[in-house]
Order: sequence, then C-alpha cells, then structure tokens
Amino acid sequence: MSLRSALLALITAGPMTGYDAAKRFAGSVGNIWYASDSQIYPELRKMEADGLLSTRPVPWGSKGTTKTEYTVTEDGKAALGDWVASPLTYTLERDPVRLRTAYLEWTDPATARQHFQEHIEHHSRVLQMAEEQIEEITRRTHPTLRRRLETYDDAEARRVVEFKLMAYRGVCARSQAEIDWAEECLGTLQAL
Amino acid sequence: MSLRSALLALITAGPMTGYDAAKRFAGSVGNIWYASDSQIYPELRKMEADGLLSTRPVPWGSKGTTKTEYTVTEDGKAALGDWVASPLTYTLERDPVRLRTAYLEWTDPATARQHFQEHIEHHSRVLQMAEEQIEEITRRTHPTLRRRLETYDDAEARRVVEFKLMAYRGVCARSQAEIDWAEECLGTLQAL
Repeated sequence: MSLRSALLALITAGPMTGYDAAKRFAGSVGNIWYASDSQIYPELRKMEADGLLSTRPVPWGSKGTTKTEYTVTEDGKAALGDWVASPLTYTLERDPVRLRTAYLEWTDPATARQHFQEHIEHHSRVLQMAEEQIEEITRRTHPTLRRRLETYDDAEARRVVEFKLMAYRGVCARSQAEIDWAEECLGTLQAL
Repeated sequence: MSLRSALLALITAGPMTGYDAAKRFAGSVGNIWYASDSQIYPELRKMEADGLLSTRPVPWGSKGTTKTEYTVTEDGKAALGDWVASPLTYTLERDPVRLRTAYLEWTDPATARQHFQEHIEHHSRVLQMAEEQIEEITRRTHPTLRRRLETYDDAEARRVVEFKLMAYRGVCARSQAEIDWAEECLGTLQAL
C-alpha cells in the first residue's frame, strides 16, 4: 500500500504522464520511499483499474502520437486521506547492522572497522541527499513542490512545505544518529 | 540469512534444545532480530539438514523421553564467521513514517499529533528494552551472555561484552533520535 500512497501523493501535485510520474518520483518522494520504474508503471495501471486515477490521452511529439496522462480521482484523494489518517503498525526490531555488531567477536578488528566505516559512508550519502532536499524545499525551488503549491493559498502552502521539511529532517536525524553511533563504535574498537 | 545467522550466534553460547533456543532467542538476540517460534523451529531443522547444527537426544522429564539438543558444528561456526565478515547491502530509504509525515496536509492536526505521539510511545518502549539489556549485559547478569562468557578468557570476554553493548547502544541512539524528532514535530505542529 505504501507505493500506491506515495504515487497518489505525488500525482496530487498535478496531472502527469507515467514517464513524468516515474521521473518526478525519483526526484522527490522516491527519496523516502524508493521504488524502481518497473514497479511504478504497473502500479499506475492497477490504480487506474481500481478507480484511483483517471486517464486521458495527451499529444506527444510532432507525429500525432499521444501519451497517457494520469489525474487523481476523488476516490484517489479519499484513499490518500484514509492512508494518512490511519495509524501505522510498528514492527519489532529487525536490523541487520545491530545483529552483526552484536557478534563482531567472530571477525577480526580490521573487518569490524570497515563495517562501521561503510555504515558512516552510507548514512553520509543519505544525510547529504536529505540536506539537498531540505534546501530545495525551503527555497521552494523543488519543481514538484512548486507545482503542488500553485493549488494552495499562502497559509496552506506553509503547512505543506513544513510537512515535507519534517519528513526530511527525520531522515537527517536518523542518519546523523547512525553516523555518531558508528564513530563512537570506531573509538571503542580502537580502545579494545 | 539473518535469522539463520542470529540462531547460529545464539547457539554458539552453548548447546540447547529447540525449546531453549526459542526461549533464549526471545530474551536476547530476538530483541534486535525479531522472529516468532514458528519461524525458529523449522529454521533449526533446515540448519541441521545443511550441516550447520548437529543434534543429539537428551533426557527430558522423568518418563524416559528425550528432546533434541542442538550444537553448532565447525561448518556452522565458519558460516557465522563468513556472515559477520561480509559487507552489508544497504538498501535505499523506505520508511513509512517519513512517507506519511511528508503528506500530513491530507489529514487534520489532531490526527497528525496522534501519529507523532504513537511514534514516541513505540520508540520509548524500544529504548526501555535496550536500556534493560544494556544493564544486564554490563552487570553480566544476562543468562545467555553468562553462559557464553564461560568459554572465553578475560580479555576476550571484555570484547564479547563490548560488541553486545555497541549493538544495544545503537538501538538506543536510533530510538532517542526518533523520539527527539517526533517531539520537535509536535512543537512545529503547535506553531502552525
């Protein structure tokens, strides 16, 4: 259901073709809910079949061909609202990084060090991505957000912007905590 | 592979029956890699078939019946070592909490507030669990850890303890970051 909700949320920014949706997805919501193009296209067709999206042909190129443009229907908006309102089921911990860390006595110190360095590199990349998104959202230069904001008045637009910022600040907070933890672990390894 | 690795790691603490393994799992490694009993028992049998565990019947009760006791084989120890040494594949972000947060304009402020409160409650529970584990590990009163430490000399035991602590400190760091983030979001909601 999350990919479906992510696509509904994306397309509420304004009607878009499947190609546009996949491209915009990768540049916005795909940063917090990753999906490949090969997951996105079939899901759009299923969402149309389920009445959450409507379609119309739009001209494409100069040879009289058309592409399918998707718009979120009233049912689609209702489904998005239901999803945003419903409580999440929190799952119990299942973190491969913590699991491996708990048993590092089964490898040598150099390998253990490398694991923590890779953890820092991964979360540094995530942190950088999130900081770039925060900058584009704050300056309102993000293309999908700009399009979305056209349909809101000033006070509403401020709320819309704030929720996007909250999401990416959460990504930053988590990745920063992971980096700090891995650096602390590297220090402990050194002392052992 | 993670459940298999978690079970191998657990049973290196010393031979145990399937029932014992499931009980000890829930009280130790299951806190960082959750699995249900109905996942654990079939996995133990598959691990035996794959040569990672050996079995022998041990007396059980007073009626001459027996239970199967599992021991990690040399192949099992090698598999555990390989898993601990191999790099992790980091997956791209897919966090339902961030995804929902990014689109909270689709619900009312009271519901948004409730979502963040539930997030705080969930992570407070995780934090408490991890702090309890840290206390038991530090005082070396944790029954599975005590059994494990019998097979190590003092210097090695210190490393074994330190890796368990690192893992749970990571759980704490993550949950504390989530709590802080959700509290900041509640403050922002208030101001909107």
